[in-house]
Amino acid sequence: MHQTTESKITVQKVKNSRIAQVDFKNLTFGNIFSDHMFECDYINGSWQNPTIKPYGPLTISPGAKVFHYAQAVFEGMKAYKDDNGNVFLFRPELNHERINKSSVRMAMPEFPKDIFFEALETLLQLDQEWIKPGMGNSLYIRPFSIATQVGVSASPSDQYKFMILLSPAQAYYTGDVKVVIAQKYSRSANGGVGFAKAAGNYGAQFFPTNLAKAEGFQQVIWTDANEHKYLEEAGTMNVFFRINDTLLTAPTGDRILDGITRKSVIDLAKRSHIKVEERPVLVSEVVDAAKNGTLKEIFGAGTAAVISPVSAFSYANVTYNIPSNNHEYALKLKKELMDIQHNVAEDTFGWRHQVV
Amino acid sequence: MHQTTESKITVQKVKNSRIAQVDFKNLTFGNIFSDHMFECDYINGSWQNPTIKPYGPLTISPGAKVFHYAQAVFEGMKAYKDDNGNVFLFRPELNHERINKSSVRMAMPEFPKDIFFEALETLLQLDQEWIKPGMGNSLYIRPFSIATQVGVSASPSDQYKFMILLSPAQAYYTGDVKVVIAQKYSRSANGGVGFAKAAGNYGAQFFPTNLAKAEGFQQVIWTDANEHKYLEEAGTMNVFFRINDTLLTAPTGDRILDGITRKSVIDLAKRSHIKVEERPVLVSEVVDAAKNGTLKEIFGAGTAAVISPVSAFSYANVTYNIPSNNHEYALKLKKELMDIQHNVAEDTFGWRHQVV
Repeated sequence: MHQTTESKITVQKVKNSRIAQVDFKNLTFGNIFSDHMFECDYINGSWQNPTIKPYGPLTISPGAKVFHYAQAVFEGMKAYKDDNGNVFLFRPELNHERINKSSVRMAMPEFPKDIFFEALETLLQLDQEWIKPGMGNSLYIRPFSIATQVGVSASPSDQYKFMILLSPAQAYYTGDVKVVIAQKYSRSANGGVGFAKAAGNYGAQFFPTNLAKAEGFQQVIWTDANEHKYLEEAGTMNVFFRINDTLLTAPTGDRILDGITRKSVIDLAKRSHIKVEERPVLVSEVVDAAKNGTLKEIFGAGTAAVISPVSAFSYANVTYNIPSNNHEYALKLKKELMDIQHNVAEDTFGWRHQVV
Repeated sequence: MHQTTESKITVQKVKNSRIAQVDFKNLTFGNIFSDHMFECDYINGSWQNPTIKPYGPLTISPGAKVFHYAQAVFEGMKAYKDDNGNVFLFRPELNHERINKSSVRMAMPEFPKDIFFEALETLLQLDQEWIKPGMGNSLYIRPFSIATQVGVSASPSDQYKFMILLSPAQAYYTGDVKVVIAQKYSRSANGGVGFAKAAGNYGAQFFPTNLAKAEGFQQVIWTDANEHKYLEEAGTMNVFFRINDTLLTAPTGDRILDGITRKSVIDLAKRSHIKVEERPVLVSEVVDAAKNGTLKEIFGAGTAAVISPVSAFSYANVTYNIPSNNHEYALKLKKELMDIQHNVAEDTFGWRHQVV
């Protein structure tokens, strides 16, 4: 254990790396973690003892509020390595802003920007061998904050733990993604927490998603809870619809996550003079477009999935295949996005943040 | 440690009870736990190793899904002791049914009824000194289930931990409860998880409740997310409105918890020939009734609060005091309910479940 002079973060290095045990060619998403993790506790009104230490279990009371009231928020980010060993984050300041917005909505304390970045950069320097070069390889980064005060009264915690875990991720072919448009279940409502990366938004989707899976679909596209008339998001991805040559996507707001991949896809599309409309998208217009052949593509956009082309959707028990199904815009935008992320293309937007 | 012959539950008793350190006359709700707790793990598709052991911390991976996706449900129950040392639960089969309904909605495995009851009864026998006789004293019981699989992919856990904690609770005077009727924030929507005791439903309410507290109110009465026209519940309590001599309360459904105290209050009211209407209750009719003097009472009903009279509500920035404010029905129903719970009155409904 040592404390660097310029750093507020205490660093306890592992004695022996576990990296040799990892088969980087056969990774399952999100279940292997790198050698180190970051931990910082909120006690008596301030964040204290920022520490990087070997990845390992927590000791926590079963009465901690996170278990009972899900005061818990998170982020998803990735680090990329180019062929020269340089390591980059992608628009990380947006993740920092968003976890703080999520925290405010969940009555949790915001996390300081300087420690957030110092923690990320120190972690990634320590665990840089866990980031493999090559298009699609990355180190998935999971910052999260949880309520640790012991007590089963339904009120905000006065203690929290902020952590960052790192998990190596691989480019993988997900196969055809088929989705169901929600007609009964819902994800969020106006005045709720749908815009936040609050833990509870995710667990609540598993049951309806299981129902979709039982019918051969992989994901649900959520609609407004009130009338199920408007297309919103897919829970782990924002969704784009290409009708003729125009991309449509729902506007962000109370109910929809302000996705960083979503935002970037819009900018990339506009750069290529693709028309993008951020507006409420009717289920009926997408169904009509599927029927009359003007629906050319559907794709999801999110950090974990990057850009995920959809080959078919189900609505009111009818399955509509995407007519052309060449995923032209999805694949073009995905390549442009990944080329920037992996330092293959010029970063005209200033999105890359070099770490190593 | 020993395993009783008739029991499937392994029991590890504490060497020294902590009970002498507890000031039972000055308890804060929910932050002291009794000597023992129950724990049972779901692994490979079945609940395994049911164990009662000394209350103490868990060792759990920071990658456990409960921290990231809030697959977590809970129950609230109480055990009561009469002056002869008999210990009772109140309609515990309803808590068992409800935690299983909550679990299904959160894509979590149901918990077997026989182990649930055996765990409760064994725990309460072991920790019966923690239940103090006297009207309003109780041992609050917190069964809960959490996702323990390690992994940050957004999909259901394949491992869970079911636990029961016990926390001594005291009769306490909460003071006048003043509430705000929600106009901007919302708690749940059709197709969502509002009917479930899912952890995420609670954390999501803390921020809007803090806003209400900053204006001198203690709780929020939630309204429908769509139009904020209908009164729903108070998050930790169902709500009753007495207009003239009729009690109104919202019907249960997707959005409203099927409260056991709510259900019992309805039965007790009907037994006294008080008219009860379970139907959508308009904000406007309660506001009108407050204005014309026909609104006689508002009260909340829930396990922790029992019955909690409301002295004033705020709507559209106007505060309405309850005109008569003698809490006639609330106090009558509260007395009848507590007399049954504490074995002071005859149990005509068969609600008591004797444990010791």
